[in-house]
Amino acid sequence: MTDVKHMKWWGWGLEGIAFHHENKPGFAPFLKSAVGVDLSLPTEPTSMAFEDLDVPASRASDAFLTALTGIVGATYLTTNDMDRVIHTFGKSIRDLLRVRAGDLARVPDVVIYPADEAEVQDIVDAAVEADAVIIPFGGGSNIVGSLEPLATEERTVISLDLGRLNRVLDIDEGSGLARIQAGAQGPDLEAELTKAGWTIGHFPDSFTHSTVGGWVATRSSGMQSDKYGDIADIAKGLRVVRPGGVLVIRAIPSASTGPSVREMILGSEGRLGVITEVTVQVHRIPANREILAYLYPTWRAGLAAMQAISESDASPSVTRVSDGNETVFSFATSKASKGLSSLVTKGLGVFLKAKGWDTTKMCLSFVGYEGGDELVSRNQKLVASIVKKHGGVSVGKGPGVLYDQKKFDTPYIRDFFLDFGGSADVSETAAPWSKLLPLYTDVIASANRAFDEIGVKGWIMAHMSHSYHSGACLYFTFAFVSTGDAIAQYDVVKTAIQQAFITNGGTVSHHHGVGLEHAPWLEEDISSEGIAMMRGLFDAADPKGTFNPGKVVLGSTTKVEQSALG
Amino acid sequence: MTDVKHMKWWGWGLEGIAFHHENKPGFAPFLKSAVGVDLSLPTEPTSMAFEDLDVPASRASDAFLTALTGIVGATYLTTNDMDRVIHTFGKSIRDLLRVRAGDLARVPDVVIYPADEAEVQDIVDAAVEADAVIIPFGGGSNIVGSLEPLATEERTVISLDLGRLNRVLDIDEGSGLARIQAGAQGPDLEAELTKAGWTIGHFPDSFTHSTVGGWVATRSSGMQSDKYGDIADIAKGLRVVRPGGVLVIRAIPSASTGPSVREMILGSEGRLGVITEVTVQVHRIPANREILAYLYPTWRAGLAAMQAISESDASPSVTRVSDGNETVFSFATSKASKGLSSLVTKGLGVFLKAKGWDTTKMCLSFVGYEGGDELVSRNQKLVASIVKKHGGVSVGKGPGVLYDQKKFDTPYIRDFFLDFGGSADVSETAAPWSKLLPLYTDVIASANRAFDEIGVKGWIMAHMSHSYHSGACLYFTFAFVSTGDAIAQYDVVKTAIQQAFITNGGTVSHHHGVGLEHAPWLEEDISSEGIAMMRGLFDAADPKGTFNPGKVVLGSTTKVEQSALG
Repeated sequence: MTDVKHMKWWGWGLEGIAFHHENKPGFAPFLKSAVGVDLSLPTEPTSMAFEDLDVPASRASDAFLTALTGIVGATYLTTNDMDRVIHTFGKSIRDLLRVRAGDLARVPDVVIYPADEAEVQDIVDAAVEADAVIIPFGGGSNIVGSLEPLATEERTVISLDLGRLNRVLDIDEGSGLARIQAGAQGPDLEAELTKAGWTIGHFPDSFTHSTVGGWVATRSSGMQSDKYGDIADIAKGLRVVRPGGVLVIRAIPSASTGPSVREMILGSEGRLGVITEVTVQVHRIPANREILAYLYPTWRAGLAAMQAISESDASPSVTRVSDGNETVFSFATSKASKGLSSLVTKGLGVFLKAKGWDTTKMCLSFVGYEGGDELVSRNQKLVASIVKKHGGVSVGKGPGVLYDQKKFDTPYIRDFFLDFGGSADVSETAAPWSKLLPLYTDVIASANRAFDEIGVKGWIMAHMSHSYHSGACLYFTFAFVSTGDAIAQYDVVKTAIQQAFITNGGTVSHHHGVGLEHAPWLEEDISSEGIAMMRGLFDAADPKGTFNPGKVVLGSTTKVEQSALG
Repeated sequence: MTDVKHMKWWGWGLEGIAFHHENKPGFAPFLKSAVGVDLSLPTEPTSMAFEDLDVPASRASDAFLTALTGIVGATYLTTNDMDRVIHTFGKSIRDLLRVRAGDLARVPDVVIYPADEAEVQDIVDAAVEADAVIIPFGGGSNIVGSLEPLATEERTVISLDLGRLNRVLDIDEGSGLARIQAGAQGPDLEAELTKAGWTIGHFPDSFTHSTVGGWVATRSSGMQSDKYGDIADIAKGLRVVRPGGVLVIRAIPSASTGPSVREMILGSEGRLGVITEVTVQVHRIPANREILAYLYPTWRAGLAAMQAISESDASPSVTRVSDGNETVFSFATSKASKGLSSLVTKGLGVFLKAKGWDTTKMCLSFVGYEGGDELVSRNQKLVASIVKKHGGVSVGKGPGVLYDQKKFDTPYIRDFFLDFGGSADVSETAAPWSKLLPLYTDVIASANRAFDEIGVKGWIMAHMSHSYHSGACLYFTFAFVSTGDAIAQYDVVKTAIQQAFITNGGTVSHHHGVGLEHAPWLEEDISSEGIAMMRGLFDAADPKGTFNPGKVVLGSTTKVEQSALG
């Protein structure tokens, strides 16, 4: 079999890695208070054992499998249950609840691992010929339902895993451009770049288990987007296998050859073909990379400071501020001996209370600095004066170092929580600065109403990240212990949050994509004419519906009909 | 009649404004040396008188005109010859040669000036109903053939002039977002913004005679793009009238709802509907705006310095360097009493020669600085050290002030030159840093071969502008006095230059668009699959071919057939 590594079939990340709370004394009391879970009570994994899953048999015909085997060889094609289940879903809470419960309406019929672009082309052409469906698969970290076959799909479904196209092919040192195969995962490609003295500067939360092709297909953003841009800025050149040929977008810094085909591929979630190669801009590794932490007395003050920084002459790499709840969560998940909680329980807490702060509502902020000594020092000074003006205080480097170390680990907490019957997921949006606070307030109120409606003790927290000149991203995390049908209850909360985004001028997603999960709100976001334009493009580019059909824009534009498919 | 102002029917800009060389002692000798024109010999305008033009009659039916008049009123619809000729072409050399010679294969049948979006909607719906063609018209500054009706067009052609949709509707002061009607021209909208303390930061060469809707339709770039971004970055929200409804893209700082419909409109050149409103990000007017001039001993040194600046911790608003020929041209068009020529003829020239420079080959560079005192001073220091490292010298603020004052006047020189039988135009591209110098070298060689082929004394010069992390724009200006069919000879030179762009890894256009002029090279730029994707979008979004048909992607993808339409 292939040596392409995958995440756990039932959760995030690698086998053997899990969240532990024993060394985090604030966590158990926090969880009790936030969602009513008592960690001292015994529990057991909520997932079914794999052997108890009822995995639908592959529907692929022998003839078709023989044809595909002829392309990649028997080693790199499989119909076994484990592989097909792993390739059925991404890692949203909806996905985890379903897979753990054995709710497998439709799994791919075959998983295939091509070695190179030529094999991808042969697979695509064979699939079109056989009227099969292709769903490209990168790291499998998607959380908006972009990877699953439609439950109603009657045709043969191929999960095309790009895991063997995982190399950094070339670095144009004279331009700062790296050609990378689409299936290269974050840590691997960054390690290759680091060896040559470069960085991609793209570090989404999913970094450890996502691929450059997936970033493009999702239109993702990394934590340092303030400096390096979103993947839409970073991905300059593309190769995309289409029926009968390869779409080649050469790496050009900027062009007026619109409507830009490069940008049609960005966020296309597999619907326009199979991305095989991305040429990304890379940067010399900066002399300094530092994240400093700050505290603000209120969320309003923290947001205002972030906007002031974005409008100032400072040029930080990260601007991030958590609301009061997320700050409480950060303290609760930090270790006793070091980290935030110790900071605040010591002198700082006394100092802040003396200043009149309600320290249960204060907001933790991180600002990142990259570059030469002079730039970093200058930016820190500029930011310090803005922080002060907005009533904030600096709490130094320590928390930032810890944040940097554990930033990719949050998804493991969700698996831990699932074992206590808990559902947790995230929703994020972007909106103009003037709309962020009203949007935030309405999202919190809407989520709390939804918690009441389903009769649970719910928790919601948020942070602002990814600053732009005219606005920013707000990222919400919500959790509760379900008291009935977990997915139905999740839907109530998720729907309330997404609708509040749209109603308050936000987009359905800043960097997670549309998939099936967000498709019901797309029309309200980009208007019915926008949906028509997108559908026109998909229908023209993929008249047989070969490529990941039904994602982003479903066959129908009405919410009711879309929801019926969900 | 409407009070919407237009440029001269036969040339650039306003009546009464023209280029004069009497106060520029270097100009006559330069022109003699560069292209063999003797300005001391008498000449006369090469344009026909308007009354001698044979303007094809309007083909619009009385019934259709009555229907349109019912929408906008008789004052705002015209079939008169002058209006129709003004709306026939943009301002490329091909356009000017044709209009001055009365070569009017197809002129719009009616020019209409709607008052608002509702009227635009009614016109669009009437046009679709009547199977007429709509060509949106902004400032008329296009130079890639995007405004002319196809010579073969049998249907009624409406030139839809957005000139009355010219207001800044609203400024969201809390977000830095301004809603502007599509027909607002650069100086007018900037004046409105300035009153409120804001700037759009978008200053293309065409600024004085182009509109925000046109910038979006063209996917244009302004001189300060290093700081403010291209229009693709600046335009956040859009309203586009489509058959039966308005496409509404709300102003969102960034979104993962791909394929982005906002980006489909960017560069769409009227093919997807009529842009009626653009929400742009605006910036507070910076405390300082300065342009400093530098000189480099060679083009290679100048380019290397620009790349070093773009990779450094400096953040200038403009990075620009001219090659030796363009530097000579700049000196030749500066006034005697002040400006560049006096600088160099005085002590500086002696100093540079003493340093071993060949001052006939030195390269003039401008770097712009915007922001607070500290940022400007810091950036100037960082740039100064880079300039020094690359063997350059600073020549202070004077030339930059002059450049800033006259930057929009260059097109007037072309009209002056036309009266001497001269053809001059521009071609620009963008490419990765590592490809710029080989591309440049091949373009110069290719143009010179083309000059030889047509037997003229030609001139070609270039500058680099619009720096990006991974590359930059190269902008070429070429001129010669034609010895036969001016358009045929222009085609030989233009073709040589565009082909060299493509062959050397450049794009067909960095900021002028595709239109008819660059369409023959688009397939080599974005591949046949890219062309298919674009065509699929156009055909799906505009099945009747109502909106500016034939531009960007012609009915056929082969160069031969496309050229036959040109």
